Amino acid sequence: MFEFVEYKIWRIKMKAVKYTDIEPVKFDSDVVKGVKGRVLIGKDDGAENFCMRVFEIAANGHTPRHSHEWEHEIFTHSGNGEVVLKEKWHPMSPGTAIFIPGNTEHQMKNINDEPLVVVCLVPSGVPEL
Amino acid sequence: MFEFVEYKIWRIKMKAVKYTDIEPVKFDSDVVKGVKGRVLIGKDDGAENFCMRVFEIAANGHTPRHSHEWEHEIFTHSGNGEVVLKEKWHPMSPGTAIFIPGNTEHQMKNINDEPLVVVCLVPSGVPEL
Repeated sequence: MFEFVEYKIWRIKMKAVKYTDIEPVKFDSDVVKGVKGRVLIGKDDGAENFCMRVFEIAANGHTPRHSHEWEHEIFTHSGNGEVVLKEKWHPMSPGTAIFIPGNTEHQMKNINDEPLVVVCLVPSGVPEL
Repeated sequence: MFEFVEYKIWRIKMKAVKYTDIEPVKFDSDVVKGVKGRVLIGKDDGAENFCMRVFEIAANGHTPRHSHEWEHEIFTHSGNGEVVLKEKWHPMSPGTAIFIPGNTEHQMKNINDEPLVVVCLVPSGVPEL
Protein backbone atom coordinates (compact mmCIF):
# COMPACT_ATOMS: atom_id res chain seq x y z
CA MET A 1 0.00 0.00 0.00
CA PHE A 2 1.17 3.47 -0.80
CA GLU A 3 0.47 6.35 1.45
CA PHE A 4 -0.44 9.51 -0.35
CA VAL A 5 0.44 12.72 1.42
CA GLU A 6 -0.54 16.08 0.14
CA TYR A 7 2.03 18.78 0.70
CA LYS A 8 0.87 22.32 0.59
CA ILE A 9 3.56 24.83 -0.06
CA TRP A 10 2.41 28.15 1.27
CA ARG A 11 3.97 31.10 -0.44
CA ILE A 12 2.71 33.76 1.87
CA LYS A 13 4.55 36.96 1.14
CA MET A 14 4.33 40.51 2.27
CA LYS A 15 2.76 42.76 -0.33
CA ALA A 16 2.53 46.48 -0.99
CA VAL A 17 0.41 47.55 -3.95
CA LYS A 18 -1.33 50.67 -5.19
CA TYR A 19 -4.92 49.73 -5.95
CA THR A 20 -4.90 51.71 -9.20
CA ASP A 21 -2.09 49.42 -10.46
CA ILE A 22 -4.48 46.45 -10.43
CA GLU A 23 -6.60 45.83 -13.51
CA PRO A 24 -10.25 46.24 -12.51
CA VAL A 25 -13.17 43.95 -13.23
CA LYS A 26 -16.07 45.97 -14.60
CA PHE A 27 -19.67 45.39 -13.54
CA ASP A 28 -22.55 46.72 -15.61
CA SER A 29 -25.89 44.97 -15.88
CA ASP A 30 -29.56 45.39 -15.05
CA VAL A 31 -28.78 45.45 -11.34
CA VAL A 32 -25.33 47.06 -11.11
CA LYS A 33 -24.10 50.17 -12.89
CA GLY A 34 -20.67 51.73 -13.36
CA VAL A 35 -18.78 49.62 -10.83
CA LYS A 36 -15.12 48.58 -11.02
CA GLY A 37 -13.89 45.97 -8.55
CA ARG A 38 -10.37 44.91 -7.54
CA VAL A 39 -9.09 42.31 -5.10
CA LEU A 40 -6.19 43.89 -3.19
CA ILE A 41 -5.47 41.13 -0.67
CA GLY A 42 -7.03 37.69 -0.92
CA LYS A 43 -6.53 33.95 -1.07
CA ASP A 44 -3.86 34.22 -3.77
CA ASP A 45 -1.78 36.17 -1.26
CA GLY A 46 -2.29 33.57 1.47
CA ALA A 47 -4.77 35.74 3.36
CA GLU A 48 -6.65 33.06 5.28
CA ASN A 49 -9.14 35.04 7.34
CA PHE A 50 -10.52 37.91 5.28
CA CYS A 51 -10.24 39.56 1.88
CA MET A 52 -9.75 43.23 0.97
CA ARG A 53 -11.37 44.58 -2.17
CA VAL A 54 -11.80 48.10 -3.54
CA PHE A 55 -14.83 49.23 -5.52
CA GLU A 56 -14.99 52.38 -7.62
CA ILE A 57 -18.55 53.46 -8.29
CA ALA A 58 -18.81 55.99 -11.13
CA ALA A 59 -21.08 59.05 -11.17
CA ASN A 60 -24.69 57.81 -11.30
CA GLY A 61 -23.45 54.30 -10.57
CA HIS A 62 -24.63 51.85 -7.94
CA THR A 63 -23.97 48.36 -6.58
CA PRO A 64 -26.72 45.72 -6.72
CA ARG A 65 -29.40 45.69 -4.06
CA HIS A 66 -28.84 42.30 -2.52
CA SER A 67 -28.11 40.31 0.60
CA HIS A 68 -25.93 37.30 1.39
CA GLU A 69 -24.90 35.26 4.39
CA TRP A 70 -21.60 37.03 4.97
CA GLU A 71 -20.85 40.45 6.40
CA HIS A 72 -19.18 43.52 4.88
CA GLU A 73 -16.82 45.90 6.63
CA ILE A 74 -16.56 49.01 4.48
CA PHE A 75 -14.41 52.15 4.63
CA THR A 76 -15.11 55.13 2.37
CA HIS A 77 -11.84 56.30 0.82
CA SER A 78 -13.03 59.10 -1.47
CA GLY A 79 -16.12 60.54 -3.11
CA ASN A 80 -19.64 60.85 -1.79
CA GLY A 81 -22.43 58.36 -1.78
CA GLU A 82 -25.19 56.73 0.17
CA VAL A 83 -25.75 53.25 1.52
CA VAL A 84 -29.19 51.81 2.22
CA LEU A 85 -29.57 49.76 5.36
CA LYS A 86 -33.07 48.62 6.29
CA GLU A 87 -34.70 51.17 3.97
CA LYS A 88 -32.78 54.10 5.48
CA TRP A 89 -30.15 55.84 3.36
CA HIS A 90 -26.98 56.85 5.21
CA PRO A 91 -24.42 59.33 3.83
CA MET A 92 -20.97 58.06 2.87
CA SER A 93 -18.06 60.47 2.66
CA PRO A 94 -14.31 60.01 3.12
CA GLY A 95 -13.76 58.36 6.49
CA THR A 96 -17.22 56.79 6.88
CA ALA A 97 -17.10 53.15 8.02
CA ILE A 98 -20.07 50.84 7.51
CA PHE A 99 -20.77 47.45 9.04
CA ILE A 100 -23.29 45.34 7.15
CA PRO A 101 -23.99 42.10 9.04
CA GLY A 102 -24.77 38.93 7.11
CA ASN A 103 -28.25 38.41 5.65
CA THR A 104 -28.87 42.15 5.51
CA GLU A 105 -30.09 43.80 2.33
CA HIS A 106 -27.82 46.61 1.20
CA GLN A 107 -26.87 48.80 -1.72
CA MET A 108 -24.44 51.67 -2.32
CA LYS A 109 -24.83 54.50 -4.80
CA ASN A 110 -22.76 57.47 -5.89
CA ILE A 111 -24.44 60.84 -5.40
CA ASN A 112 -21.72 63.04 -6.85
CA ASP A 113 -19.67 63.65 -10.01
CA GLU A 114 -16.42 62.06 -8.84
CA PRO A 115 -16.03 58.32 -8.30
CA LEU A 116 -17.07 56.86 -4.96
CA VAL A 117 -14.17 54.67 -3.82
CA VAL A 118 -14.76 52.20 -1.00
CA VAL A 119 -12.64 49.53 0.63
CA CYS A 120 -14.92 46.54 1.27
CA LEU A 121 -13.84 43.44 3.19
CA VAL A 122 -15.42 40.01 3.33
CA PRO A 123 -14.50 36.88 5.27
CA SER A 124 -12.47 34.21 3.49
CA GLY A 125 -14.32 31.43 1.69
CA VAL A 126 -16.90 33.58 -0.07
CA PRO A 127 -16.61 34.98 -3.61
CA GLU A 128 -13.78 37.51 -3.65
CA LEU A 129 -15.31 39.55 -6.46
CA MET B 1 -31.15 17.33 37.60
CA PHE B 2 -31.43 20.71 36.05
CA GLU B 3 -30.22 21.40 32.60
CA PHE B 4 -28.46 24.68 32.21
CA VAL B 5 -28.69 26.27 28.83
CA GLU B 6 -26.85 29.39 27.91
CA TYR B 7 -28.73 31.72 25.64
CA LYS B 8 -26.76 34.24 23.71
CA ILE B 9 -28.72 37.17 22.44
CA TRP B 10 -26.83 38.64 19.54
CA ARG B 11 -27.49 42.28 18.98
CA ILE B 12 -25.80 42.54 15.65
CA LYS B 13 -26.78 45.79 14.04
CA MET B 14 -25.85 47.64 10.94
CA LYS B 15 -23.61 50.59 11.64
CA ALA B 16 -22.48 53.71 9.79
CA VAL B 17 -19.92 55.91 11.56
CA LYS B 18 -17.40 58.60 10.65
CA TYR B 19 -14.07 57.57 12.13
CA THR B 20 -13.39 61.11 13.37
CA ASP B 21 -16.52 60.86 15.54
CA ILE B 22 -14.90 58.11 17.62
CA GLU B 23 -12.72 59.13 20.57
CA PRO B 24 -9.17 57.96 19.84
CA VAL B 25 -6.80 56.06 22.09
CA LYS B 26 -3.41 57.78 22.09
CA PHE B 27 -0.14 55.85 21.94
CA ASP B 28 3.13 57.49 22.92
CA SER B 29 6.00 55.60 24.52
CA ASP B 30 9.59 54.56 23.92
CA VAL B 31 8.53 52.41 20.98
CA VAL B 32 5.53 54.23 19.48
CA LYS B 33 5.20 57.95 18.77
CA GLY B 34 2.27 60.18 17.85
CA VAL B 35 -0.26 57.45 17.10
CA LYS B 36 -4.04 57.63 17.61
CA GLY B 37 -6.04 54.41 17.29
CA ARG B 38 -9.76 53.80 16.89
CA VAL B 39 -11.80 50.61 16.56
CA LEU B 40 -14.41 51.22 13.86
CA ILE B 41 -15.96 47.75 13.62
CA GLY B 42 -15.20 45.01 16.14
CA LYS B 43 -16.53 42.46 18.57
CA ASP B 44 -18.83 44.98 20.26
CA ASP B 45 -20.61 45.30 16.92
CA GLY B 46 -20.94 41.54 16.53
CA ALA B 47 -18.19 41.36 13.91
CA GLU B 48 -17.14 37.74 14.29
CA ASN B 49 -14.44 37.33 11.67
CA PHE B 50 -12.28 40.44 11.54
CA CYS B 51 -11.90 43.88 13.08
CA MET B 52 -11.46 47.28 11.39
CA ARG B 53 -9.31 49.91 13.09
CA VAL B 54 -7.99 53.27 11.90
CA PHE B 55 -4.63 54.67 12.95
CA GLU B 56 -3.59 58.29 12.58
CA ILE B 57 0.18 58.70 12.70
CA ALA B 58 1.25 62.31 13.28
CA ALA B 59 4.15 64.06 11.53
CA ASN B 60 7.38 62.42 12.74
CA GLY B 61 5.31 59.65 14.32
CA HIS B 62 5.67 55.90 13.96
CA THR B 63 4.13 52.63 15.09
CA PRO B 64 6.20 50.14 17.10
CA ARG B 65 8.57 47.82 15.29
CA HIS B 66 7.14 44.47 16.24
CA SER B 67 5.72 41.17 15.06
CA HIS B 68 2.86 38.95 16.20
CA GLU B 69 1.13 35.79 15.11
CA TRP B 70 -1.73 37.46 13.26
CA GLU B 71 -1.77 39.24 9.93
CA HIS B 72 -2.57 42.85 9.00
CA GLU B 73 -4.47 44.03 5.95
CA ILE B 74 -3.82 47.74 5.59
CA PHE B 75 -5.21 50.46 3.29
CA THR B 76 -3.67 53.92 3.18
CA HIS B 77 -6.45 56.51 3.34
CA SER B 78 -4.44 59.77 3.41
CA GLY B 79 -0.99 61.16 4.02
CA ASN B 80 2.39 59.76 3.09
CA GLY B 81 4.53 57.27 4.92
CA GLU B 82 6.66 54.20 4.69
CA VAL B 83 6.30 50.64 5.92
CA VAL B 84 9.26 48.37 6.58
CA LEU B 85 8.87 44.76 5.50
CA LYS B 86 11.95 42.53 5.81
CA GLU B 87 14.32 45.52 6.09
CA LYS B 88 12.98 47.16 2.93
CA TRP B 89 11.02 50.39 3.23
CA HIS B 90 8.00 50.68 0.91
CA PRO B 91 6.19 53.95 0.16
CA MET B 92 2.64 54.43 1.42
CA SER B 93 0.39 57.00 -0.21
CA PRO B 94 -3.40 57.22 -0.58
CA GLY B 95 -4.58 53.97 -2.15
CA THR B 96 -1.62 51.78 -1.15
CA ALA B 97 -2.66 48.41 0.28
CA ILE B 98 -0.27 46.36 2.39
CA PHE B 99 -0.49 42.73 3.44
CA ILE B 100 1.64 41.80 6.43
CA PRO B 101 1.43 38.05 7.11
CA GLY B 102 1.63 36.77 10.68
CA ASN B 103 5.00 36.53 12.41
CA THR B 104 6.48 39.23 10.19
CA GLU B 105 8.29 42.20 11.68
CA HIS B 106 6.82 45.51 10.56
CA GLN B 107 6.62 49.20 11.34
CA MET B 108 4.98 52.24 9.75
CA LYS B 109 6.22 55.82 9.88
CA ASN B 110 4.98 59.17 8.66
CA ILE B 111 7.34 60.96 6.27
CA ASN B 112 5.32 64.12 5.76
CA ASP B 113 3.74 67.03 7.61
CA GLU B 114 0.14 65.86 7.46
CA PRO B 115 -1.17 62.85 9.40
CA LEU B 116 -0.77 59.42 7.84
CA VAL B 117 -4.17 57.74 8.13
CA VAL B 118 -4.40 53.99 7.60
CA VAL B 119 -7.19 51.46 7.87
CA CYS B 120 -5.71 48.34 9.48
CA LEU B 121 -7.63 45.08 9.89
CA VAL B 122 -6.88 42.11 12.11
CA PRO B 123 -8.65 38.76 12.53
CA SER B 124 -11.07 38.39 15.44
CA GLY B 125 -9.77 37.07 18.74
CA VAL B 126 -6.62 39.20 18.94
CA PRO B 127 -6.29 42.55 20.74
CA GLU B 128 -8.47 45.07 18.91
CA LEU B 129 -6.29 48.02 19.89
